[in-house]
Amino acid sequence: MTECIKQRWRRGEVTLGAWLMVPSALSAEILSKSGFDWVLVDMQHGCMDYETAVNMIRAIDLSGAMPVVRVPWNEPGIIGRMLDAGAMAIVAPMIEGVEDARRLVQACRYPPAGRRSLGPTRVGARDGMGYVATANDRVCVIPMIETASALEAVEDIAAVEGVDALLVGPFDLSFALGLQPNDNDGKPVFDAAIARINAAARARGIASAVFSTAALAPLRASQGFQMISVITDASAIGMAGAQSLAAARAGIEGASDHA
Amino acid sequence: MTECIKQRWRRGEVTLGAWLMVPSALSAEILSKSGFDWVLVDMQHGCMDYETAVNMIRAIDLSGAMPVVRVPWNEPGIIGRMLDAGAMAIVAPMIEGVEDARRLVQACRYPPAGRRSLGPTRVGARDGMGYVATANDRVCVIPMIETASALEAVEDIAAVEGVDALLVGPFDLSFALGLQPNDNDGKPVFDAAIARINAAARARGIASAVFSTAALAPLRASQGFQMISVITDASAIGMAGAQSLAAARAGIEGASDHA
Amino acid sequence: MTECIKQRWRRGEVTLGAWLMVPSALSAEILSKSGFDWVLVDMQHGCMDYETAVNMIRAIDLSGAMPVVRVPWNEPGIIGRMLDAGAMAIVAPMIEGVEDARRLVQACRYPPAGRRSLGPTRVGARDGMGYVATANDRVCVIPMIETASALEAVEDIAAVEGVDALLVGPFDLSFALGLQPNDNDGKPVFDAAIARINAAARARGIASAVFSTAALAPLRASQGFQMISVITDASAIGMAGAQSLAAARAGIEGASDHA
Amino acid sequence: MTECIKQRWRRGEVTLGAWLMVPSALSAEILSKSGFDWVLVDMQHGCMDYETAVNMIRAIDLSGAMPVVRVPWNEPGIIGRMLDAGAMAIVAPMIEGVEDARRLVQACRYPPAGRRSLGPTRVGARDGMGYVATANDRVCVIPMIETASALEAVEDIAAVEGVDALLVGPFDLSFALGLQPNDNDGKPVFDAAIARINAAARARGIASAVFSTAALAPLRASQGFQMISVITDASAIGMAGAQSLAAARAGIEGASDHA
Amino acid sequence: MTECIKQRWRRGEVTLGAWLMVPSALSAEILSKSGFDWVLVDMQHGCMDYETAVNMIRAIDLSGAMPVVRVPWNEPGIIGRMLDAGAMAIVAPMIEGVEDARRLVQACRYPPAGRRSLGPTRVGARDGMGYVATANDRVCVIPMIETASALEAVEDIAAVEGVDALLVGPFDLSFALGLQPNDNDGKPVFDAAIARINAAARARGIASAVFSTAALAPLRASQGFQMISVITDASAIGMAGAQSLAAARAGIEGASDHA
Amino acid sequence: MTECIKQRWRRGEVTLGAWLMVPSALSAEILSKSGFDWVLVDMQHGCMDYETAVNMIRAIDLSGAMPVVRVPWNEPGIIGRMLDAGAMAIVAPMIEGVEDARRLVQACRYPPAGRRSLGPTRVGARDGMGYVATANDRVCVIPMIETASALEAVEDIAAVEGVDALLVGPFDLSFALGLQPNDNDGKPVFDAAIARINAAARARGIASAVFSTAALAPLRASQGFQMISVITDASAIGMAGAQSLAAARAGIEGASDHA
Repeated sequence: MTECIKQRWRRGEVTLGAWLMVPSALSAEILSKSGFDWVLVDMQHGCMDYETAVNMIRAIDLSGAMPVVRVPWNEPGIIGRMLDAGAMAIVAPMIEGVEDARRLVQACRYPPAGRRSLGPTRVGARDGMGYVATANDRVCVIPMIETASALEAVEDIAAVEGVDALLVGPFDLSFALGLQPNDNDGKPVFDAAIARINAAARARGIASAVFSTAALAPLRASQGFQMISVITDASAIGMAGAQSLAAARAGIEGASDHA
Repeated sequence: MTECIKQRWRRGEVTLGAWLMVPSALSAEILSKSGFDWVLVDMQHGCMDYETAVNMIRAIDLSGAMPVVRVPWNEPGIIGRMLDAGAMAIVAPMIEGVEDARRLVQACRYPPAGRRSLGPTRVGARDGMGYVATANDRVCVIPMIETASALEAVEDIAAVEGVDALLVGPFDLSFALGLQPNDNDGKPVFDAAIARINAAARARGIASAVFSTAALAPLRASQGFQMISVITDASAIGMAGAQSLAAARAGIEGASDHA
Repeated sequence: MTECIKQRWRRGEVTLGAWLMVPSALSAEILSKSGFDWVLVDMQHGCMDYETAVNMIRAIDLSGAMPVVRVPWNEPGIIGRMLDAGAMAIVAPMIEGVEDARRLVQACRYPPAGRRSLGPTRVGARDGMGYVATANDRVCVIPMIETASALEAVEDIAAVEGVDALLVGPFDLSFALGLQPNDNDGKPVFDAAIARINAAARARGIASAVFSTAALAPLRASQGFQMISVITDASAIGMAGAQSLAAARAGIEGASDHA
Repeated sequence: MTECIKQRWRRGEVTLGAWLMVPSALSAEILSKSGFDWVLVDMQHGCMDYETAVNMIRAIDLSGAMPVVRVPWNEPGIIGRMLDAGAMAIVAPMIEGVEDARRLVQACRYPPAGRRSLGPTRVGARDGMGYVATANDRVCVIPMIETASALEAVEDIAAVEGVDALLVGPFDLSFALGLQPNDNDGKPVFDAAIARINAAARARGIASAVFSTAALAPLRASQGFQMISVITDASAIGMAGAQSLAAARAGIEGASDHA
Repeated sequence: MTECIKQRWRRGEVTLGAWLMVPSALSAEILSKSGFDWVLVDMQHGCMDYETAVNMIRAIDLSGAMPVVRVPWNEPGIIGRMLDAGAMAIVAPMIEGVEDARRLVQACRYPPAGRRSLGPTRVGARDGMGYVATANDRVCVIPMIETASALEAVEDIAAVEGVDALLVGPFDLSFALGLQPNDNDGKPVFDAAIARINAAARARGIASAVFSTAALAPLRASQGFQMISVITDASAIGMAGAQSLAAARAGIEGASDHA
Repeated sequence: MTECIKQRWRRGEVTLGAWLMVPSALSAEILSKSGFDWVLVDMQHGCMDYETAVNMIRAIDLSGAMPVVRVPWNEPGIIGRMLDAGAMAIVAPMIEGVEDARRLVQACRYPPAGRRSLGPTRVGARDGMGYVATANDRVCVIPMIETASALEAVEDIAAVEGVDALLVGPFDLSFALGLQPNDNDGKPVFDAAIARINAAARARGIASAVFSTAALAPLRASQGFQMISVITDASAIGMAGAQSLAAARAGIEGASDHA
């Protein structure tokens, strides 16, 4: 059993991850093999059904990265299913406050810590009998901080027993702050929000996490984030397509200009 | 109905394409939207079943690119199914000689030019009633030249009635030439093979095609290739994963070194 | 970008559509190609999962019809996923009143108009960068009026900011009115309900919509409905099967009677 | 166990069937429930993969109709798989002569009558232990007569031990006869071919079969065909879409003309 | 139409069932054919999506067993979809009290008994026109009693109009009782809970049900349970794998010891 | 990289395996985790498509067992695809003689040893860059000996360069010998065939393999087989269903008899 990512966070390490939108275990396997610390299957804005997601988690498992799942909504049915599939962290979007965070924790923890139902069908095949006893310790519960109300309550959310990290979606957070959806670094209201979230996490000894890019990762790490995504499969494909086509065209035209 | 790619080849144009290994219409759609002239669904070395391939062809159709399919083998059953699905070009691997090329043409053409069976279920939904009358003219038949025996017979293969282009797989061709599987430009035996294939195509007024990269595309175009792939979804994901992770790590370490 | 259907409604046009129950992009493509103004993927009473639904939306997109999705329940997770997939209208069943309608609008609109989360993975591949800026204007929000409480509140529901049309399910509405589930035209309570819904829509300048048949479409249009379904794939198959079998049997027996 | 269709043919009965192109067990189930004697899953011009086809066969089994499969090619691998899935008749396209017909029989019969490999995984679950002992008697072997060479050899093909019926694809047969792909009744060369095939079948006491429509079924029955398809799911959907849309538009326009 | 299971329960019969976790209609068909009275598709702890579940229900239908579905959560969207697919009983997990049970009944019954929406697409294909009229009588509504609060309210839950049985999940119930998740027979608090649930059911003339094993079935029957599961596909595979491997190894080693 | 199974065979070890018919990565994972040396995905008599098979291979990879695939036919297209998916051994059915065995080897080996085409998309993601260089050494080529002609040529087949093992299908072999399909131990013609095959393998220093059961494994090992299957998922489910149902019924009836 590999070391739990929470221990790495406690030691101050920054962990880097990839984000999966494409419903395919092949792309999941190829991307996971790059050496990420964690890989996230996005059931909210990605295009996969449950069966595909389970196959993607197997592909992530093969790489040694930690499988993370973002659920489409803070709803105990889908949360339980993703945990049974082997997700070792659950990211829940559009949390509005402490009550949402508590329900998220309840859905992720076996009694007495929570109300998760027992039936680790696939994850039991992967991890064996020891899974149930250690799941409450090892599974990470990660509410997103991306709404105005969540930002207002971020210190209280960070204090909810069982919350392990706070994840920032910069685009939705920008929306919530009245900005255009983007990384809005340099805009005071955005920077202040980022700082407040990190401060809230540090005050409670939990991690902060962020959807990001390779280019922004150093900034995010310097802001205190310890769980930083640097690529998505969809953006990798989109950018590679545009760049390779442009490069090939330019190269061919350049060559024929010289001819 | 868009202009047939054969006319662009006859005018001397170089057409650029993308190669799909990942069994997903989402990645197919994202990559196709980059603006490629054609996009190939690889049923030989890719990981998709037929139903997924049909969905990928729909995604390609939405982009306006020409859908091409490489079949796993020169077998009339699968060739007919891919044409019925809307493929406008069929690439067949491991052709050994004239006889194979003739069987390939037979499988791609309706009578009297060939023996393709009538039943354009999906492509008829896409193109309507006119499809059958124009299919023999519009569908491209593309044998691969990647075995020693095909290279020996390349002039005769190019002369087979109905062959529209010759596609080079540089890795298998290298194998056939006793080289390591790679782009072996600069090695005389490889360069000679490339030249011979292009000469054979030009002599018959048909196109030559090649599996390639953006970096090599100018060289390939200068060698006479008019159908050049510049990216695959699998390599896009693999490279983006490795590069983004390395860049993020370097950036974070650099930042902490300065701190 | 095609004209938004709302503008057609504002001009008084009647738009006709098809309804998809069968989990297949092929049947979706064949039916869409008939020339409907809109085609609805029914995630409530149809049999498709999300991945299949996305493939069906691609098939609808190829036809030029507007893709509509009926979600299984007024739940923001699935609504967001269907919008990200490219649905340009969301129909939500079993709305009970103003509060439900408001939550539906919130789930369909980006801030500040609502709380939809940003991540247009597939629809961004289809529509490009302009999607986000125009989505709030273009996406239609359509609560169903099919419960007793919704009928009681129909004027208030029509007045909810962001509601674009009211859709009547005649079978469930009949149930709610104490009738057998059917088109109950001629029964005063049913006709009155239909009239009230249309009046509520017209009073607010929004459209009314109805699940219907080709035979009933003229009546529905005369009642003021501007979004009328005329066929479902399931009923097309069921009726064609029964009719063709009966016709063939009758023809064969008739022929042998004459023999 | 229901009566074998061969016994019905021997009694002179005409059996009517439906043809499935759409990859969905739902459409298969709806269409099968109409009461057809047999329902064919078309792996040649339909769009389904094997797993979907197996699910479609289950849907057909639920209706009591006999499941038939047309394979994409006369290849023993796929024939064996479809028989293991529960197909009770195999239709093979593009047969060229006696040798092809013999190989088809070999692929469909257990030793000593043929070379089918034992492993009735799914059909054994359906039919139990008795399946293997009765399969050679019950499974129908049906070569298609649709090429010029098959037509020339039709008497010999009909005489091949184990052939149970000859199936005519009128479109491909027309192609083979130099006609446009269609039902070409009235054209002497077409009518003569139909007559010859029926005569060949009758001479050997086997059945003749034909892809057809409800409208043509009486003619086909009068020509001697005993296995006649009257509808396909794809055409049912396509025609219903076009007709319902036209009817609705006409009705609405008519109504507004009167207004 | 087979006799409704409720009548068998009223006569005091014990019905035995199988539990499906594996997303496959083949394993469902093989297991169902063993002769169970009912077979449950577990959408909570099993790994299947909706389309797969529908195919599994068809496989169960072929066997004559009653198809039961456990939904992932007490949510009307998924409950309606499973009923439309042909489930004849709905098991809902993690019920907390009377309010939850009432909402469950509402989701399972057509008006006026409940609020189920009409649209029996697949089940209508299976059962024909009579389905809607009899569904409220035939469909079983089965809340689970596995939380502390449900146990406290079990007499009231049993009294909710429309509840047909109470299902005990011994593992989650043990968790709720502060025990390790297991069959905890012999522990007074566990035995008392079992007795209380059975007494509550009997007092209202409804059945009690339990997730169990073949070994425990006699005890469970003696406790009053009338719906008892005796096997799951996942445990069948897991146990057979371990046992066959151990037996083979032991046999081989024993044989070589004797050599 | 784990030790190649060929080395274990050379040391005289007996390796035990499981056989997969059910199209599901979950059942594959559960069964593989039992500790088998190898697990076979049966594309001949099992019910999985390619995409499912790839997911099953990932599940096997997670267990550390060697993934083996039986292809539906000795056809280079499907063989290449299964190798690209990560199969480390290919079993080919219905081999008729030396020529078939040579074609099988050709399809499994990269040049110059064979004609396998380069494109290890998925297996390259699993094994990295070293895969291509070692594949010819590590991949096992296993023709089946189950036809009369193959038995007659077994010594020559064993001598074909590149053949690594001979696999016996006792049921088809029995058919070929004129016996009922079964394990026919004790019948002289069957025992002689088994002995001949093992002798042929030993004479060439290659392994012999057999489809078997746990009960027969000791006999098979004593006959010289070194690759023995002891369970299939389908039989595990079928037997567990029948046994658990019988046991539960007997237990319940026994208990009520005592009451």
